[in-house]
Amino acid sequence: MAFEVTIVGSSGAVPVYGRHPSCQFINVQNRHLLIDCGEAAQIQLARFQLPIHKINQIFISHLHGDHYLGLMGLLFTMHLQRRTADLQIFSPKGLDEIILQQLKYSRSSLNFHIDYHSFPPERTMQLFEDEAITVTTIPLKHKLPTSGFLIAEKPKPLRLNKLLLEPTMKLQYIAQLKQGKDVYDGDNLLYRSADYTLPPHPSRRYAYCSDTAFNEGMAEQIRGVDLLYHEATFMDEEQEKAVETQHSTARQAGQLALKAQVKKLIVGHFSARYKELDNLLNEARSVFPQTDLATEGTTFDLDAI
Amino acid sequence: MAFEVTIVGSSGAVPVYGRHPSCQFINVQNRHLLIDCGEAAQIQLARFQLPIHKINQIFISHLHGDHYLGLMGLLFTMHLQRRTADLQIFSPKGLDEIILQQLKYSRSSLNFHIDYHSFPPERTMQLFEDEAITVTTIPLKHKLPTSGFLIAEKPKPLRLNKLLLEPTMKLQYIAQLKQGKDVYDGDNLLYRSADYTLPPHPSRRYAYCSDTAFNEGMAEQIRGVDLLYHEATFMDEEQEKAVETQHSTARQAGQLALKAQVKKLIVGHFSARYKELDNLLNEARSVFPQTDLATEGTTFDLDAI
Repeated sequence: MAFEVTIVGSSGAVPVYGRHPSCQFINVQNRHLLIDCGEAAQIQLARFQLPIHKINQIFISHLHGDHYLGLMGLLFTMHLQRRTADLQIFSPKGLDEIILQQLKYSRSSLNFHIDYHSFPPERTMQLFEDEAITVTTIPLKHKLPTSGFLIAEKPKPLRLNKLLLEPTMKLQYIAQLKQGKDVYDGDNLLYRSADYTLPPHPSRRYAYCSDTAFNEGMAEQIRGVDLLYHEATFMDEEQEKAVETQHSTARQAGQLALKAQVKKLIVGHFSARYKELDNLLNEARSVFPQTDLATEGTTFDLDAI
Repeated sequence: MAFEVTIVGSSGAVPVYGRHPSCQFINVQNRHLLIDCGEAAQIQLARFQLPIHKINQIFISHLHGDHYLGLMGLLFTMHLQRRTADLQIFSPKGLDEIILQQLKYSRSSLNFHIDYHSFPPERTMQLFEDEAITVTTIPLKHKLPTSGFLIAEKPKPLRLNKLLLEPTMKLQYIAQLKQGKDVYDGDNLLYRSADYTLPPHPSRRYAYCSDTAFNEGMAEQIRGVDLLYHEATFMDEEQEKAVETQHSTARQAGQLALKAQVKKLIVGHFSARYKELDNLLNEARSVFPQTDLATEGTTFDLDAI
């Protein structure tokens, strides 16, 4: 089952050079999540042929415009495309008021229901859970209350070793074996689970961290994730600017990836001052070689890391 | 002095096929106005290298999202680009609240001042005037209170016929002649204005009409304009849909242009159902041949009509 992250927007506050404000589309086990929704997100989603009708949860990291201004347009388009399924929106406090006020002035009543969930970004909190995944906040250090998101698969079941199954085995026994239970007939051990099963597939994790000042404190929560997106608004020579605006440099993103021992790092939220991004990528790689740029339209497959 | 209309966005409610929601950039005698500001307007303005720092007046026709959702992003970018000049925003009631609420939640204080002007779209009203132009509302028929805009140059001064000026003439006399006043020395007529001047350049007018049901009533107000932009969301075969959604067809746009005896018509606000626009253009031209499509990036020069 896929776990894929597609970069929809990679720009910092001012969209330039064909780059668009923050937005990512996640497909995890056929759940389709949107993380942040900067201006023109719906245009970018259509451009990359990502199915907006499949999105059921939207997570907004904070209420700076470059992280949510595409939301109203996306909602109107969902409405015009006759969506009826409920939509969950998770964000710091205020986004529900912003949406409802604009619906009021456009005299619009959407033909689907929105569940608004406000969360306090300053502490770790599980926002979403179903049978396969959880989404948890990652408190970040920024000018506004801001949170990243950790999307984690739950522990998976044992896998049957189909080569060893016997034609005479009953289905009810196979189900038991898959749950890790040995099968008895009275006191007689018939089948031992460990003999017929393989270890579960690993549970994959993706951490999204934008926007934030450098904060080694978060390394513990994201330790060993398969993929980390970390903002790298500036290069290290602009560290003063990074401190002032509570953003990170490419080197710092690499340092955090190294400290947290993640498998792969992608960097984004590039400042408008950088037309070319090679130097920025090289700076991050000088600390953490397994780094890529969050290039728009690119899909990162967590199994291909 | 230029009077140019550049199409920034030409799409109806759902942006598709590389078309973007409504927005036009007007340069009239070095005044730079924005009309409507759909999502991604700032991205399109940058793409066409239109100078956003020169925009001092923004006119919003109504509060459907596809006509104003690009405004917050544009304001934030003006702020980040260190604008300090005042900005005037004209719109139906509510836009000021929408902007102020979002500034509040992003804890932003713009480093320039915005003058908000709410207007009642149901009656004709002059919104703006300076020494060279006026901007007046054109009441439209739509689901929300909606207004088009008539941008008109004021009457221009007589032009001096420089070939006939005499080396001995005093500057103060020349100024009088240009104002249409004959020059006397006591009771003696020295120079007759009509002898030294040519008629003024014509005062040009541009009418922007989107979104609206077909409404012949507005022909009087826009009679003889140099350029008319009229929405043509649908083709005539979708007339029922046009009535239901209070939009116009390409044929109706042509009919209005014909009735109002305008010099040229451009049509836009195309429905997402039309990938190719040739049929739509041909339908309008079958009624009013001097029609063009409002193609994004195209500049219409009112002197070249």
